[in-house]
Amino acid sequence: MTTPTTVAAYAVASPKAALTRTTIPRRSVGEYDVGIEIKYAGICHSDIHTALGEWGEAIFPLVPGHEIAGVVTEVGAGVTRYAVGDRVGVGCFVDSCGECENCKAGEEQYCKGMVGTYNSRQFTGEPTYGGYSSHIVVNENYVLRIPDGLGLDVAAPLLCAGITLYSPLAHWGAGPGKNVGIVGMGGLGHMGVQIAHAMGAEVTVLSQSLRKKDDAVRLGADHYYATSDPETFEKLAGSFDLIVNTVSVNLPLDAYLGLLKREGTLVHVGAPGEPSSFAQFSLISQRRSMAGSMIGGIRQTQEMLNFCAEHSLGAEIEVITPDKINEAYERVLASDVRYRFVIDTASLS
Amino acid sequence: MTTPTTVAAYAVASPKAALTRTTIPRRSVGEYDVGIEIKYAGICHSDIHTALGEWGEAIFPLVPGHEIAGVVTEVGAGVTRYAVGDRVGVGCFVDSCGECENCKAGEEQYCKGMVGTYNSRQFTGEPTYGGYSSHIVVNENYVLRIPDGLGLDVAAPLLCAGITLYSPLAHWGAGPGKNVGIVGMGGLGHMGVQIAHAMGAEVTVLSQSLRKKDDAVRLGADHYYATSDPETFEKLAGSFDLIVNTVSVNLPLDAYLGLLKREGTLVHVGAPGEPSSFAQFSLISQRRSMAGSMIGGIRQTQEMLNFCAEHSLGAEIEVITPDKINEAYERVLASDVRYRFVIDTASLS
Repeated sequence: MTTPTTVAAYAVASPKAALTRTTIPRRSVGEYDVGIEIKYAGICHSDIHTALGEWGEAIFPLVPGHEIAGVVTEVGAGVTRYAVGDRVGVGCFVDSCGECENCKAGEEQYCKGMVGTYNSRQFTGEPTYGGYSSHIVVNENYVLRIPDGLGLDVAAPLLCAGITLYSPLAHWGAGPGKNVGIVGMGGLGHMGVQIAHAMGAEVTVLSQSLRKKDDAVRLGADHYYATSDPETFEKLAGSFDLIVNTVSVNLPLDAYLGLLKREGTLVHVGAPGEPSSFAQFSLISQRRSMAGSMIGGIRQTQEMLNFCAEHSLGAEIEVITPDKINEAYERVLASDVRYRFVIDTASLS
Repeated sequence: MTTPTTVAAYAVASPKAALTRTTIPRRSVGEYDVGIEIKYAGICHSDIHTALGEWGEAIFPLVPGHEIAGVVTEVGAGVTRYAVGDRVGVGCFVDSCGECENCKAGEEQYCKGMVGTYNSRQFTGEPTYGGYSSHIVVNENYVLRIPDGLGLDVAAPLLCAGITLYSPLAHWGAGPGKNVGIVGMGGLGHMGVQIAHAMGAEVTVLSQSLRKKDDAVRLGADHYYATSDPETFEKLAGSFDLIVNTVSVNLPLDAYLGLLKREGTLVHVGAPGEPSSFAQFSLISQRRSMAGSMIGGIRQTQEMLNFCAEHSLGAEIEVITPDKINEAYERVLASDVRYRFVIDTASLS
């Protein structure tokens, strides 16, 4: 089936405008391209930051969405890895230079030429449009396989939220005998709990209140503490090997660093808009580290999808029809979602 | 020879007072103690911070000095590792709990019960007095052996400045194929250059001006850049595996983080009095880390001394008589020393 070059989408027409239904162009399926009918697209907080212009002026019309799950409907003549009917995903980027040290290491997410799935430009100069649409065309090297047994709906958020947590947990060695803290119990945090638990680590959630404790325990958390309680920071002082901070607002970093053991690491996966402040002595006093991590490369994203299928993990989702996207954005901003909205984009076709 | 229990020393009698000659008590040599006649004591910037009350109110009289080199003059009946006549050193601490995870790992410097060489209290409650004196008595487990071939004068500063740089360079894998930056070309930095070079790394000094370039090149630096030149940060962007920051004032951390490769680490070994500011995205964008390191454990300090002897390394020093300590403090504050003052404490005996 030929992939349409004009497809339905939900787009932001101008800064801070609501999302409305429209049509956008898609390129024809080229020699190494895969044409995908998008079945589900997760709503990531990044989509909202971008739509609101909080990360600088976007390219309009803006079609957000980088948590994409669908089915292959067409493949180019040179495609070897995918066939029509395959269940596939697309994450935060759809191309990269392929030649830099990062690309060669399979860490394309750190390539300076990385082409974002939306609000970016292809090497031809054409803008990229994301997953809030019926179809997408992507070079096969940037397409992921969604293993059988993993529903496309619960798989969609893995392409950003899942890999954002999997990558630092794998890189910094979460596993048996390791005490891992997850700061924030939202779209990212609830994936961190599941993945760290499946890796065999002892998992503690550090959340503002105890409101989501039952969910976290059900998903595999061993402990749950409210960060609004100052005793939390005394009680847990020096106890973690690794803390992954999923919260994008400024935290009292010295308090969190104090929770780490000697040589423990606090990894940020989200960045506040303002600079952060800390005392260097919080690092020096116990040879601690503070680090950052951004999604993951294609190879590791596939590894994460396989891991999630093997451990029967997926996002906890609320599926919405495309006409509810604006409402969903409001609810995300109000932290009123457990834990990820997923748009039923199949209904756009 | 019995170690005297009243010994000559230079002390600060009250906050911000000048150092004056006085006498202080030393404990008798106990069963596991080593009595040491101090030949040389380095002047560390920490001594000055403490004397000036910049790190909180000190215990007076304050006898600074934790870069101590001397000769064993007496050993307790239970001492097995040292004998009279041995050339030995004492660094920043003279005791620790011996039971915590850090002590058991040989990382006594991170023990919460660590007893500082001065301005601290022994487990008996008695204050500790540092190396600006004629003798000291230390449990043998906290005494280092100074290898033959390493002069006691150039060895003294290794006990703090040397290990402060050796430990992070070793921990973060400085060696062949690694690009290592040393920020600051002072008492710490000039040791970092020598040690990183001897480890086989490619060494770049990042200093405010090019004033000390010739010295750095002589000591093993491959490159030298002025941080006052903004082009330095453009030219070196993304080029270091490891940067050790020896400067205790607040730097523009994002600029320095930008000098790191993917997965590179910026390690602080000194802490400014004020909090530091940075953008979390500087870490996230290339999976970078920022860390801290504090001196080193006894085992690693011995390893460092052996390494320095093997590579014929030592501090570049200016030896002074004890009556010149106050003048030396002024010159350290004016950065007018290449690169470490060492007090000829033998003249106190």
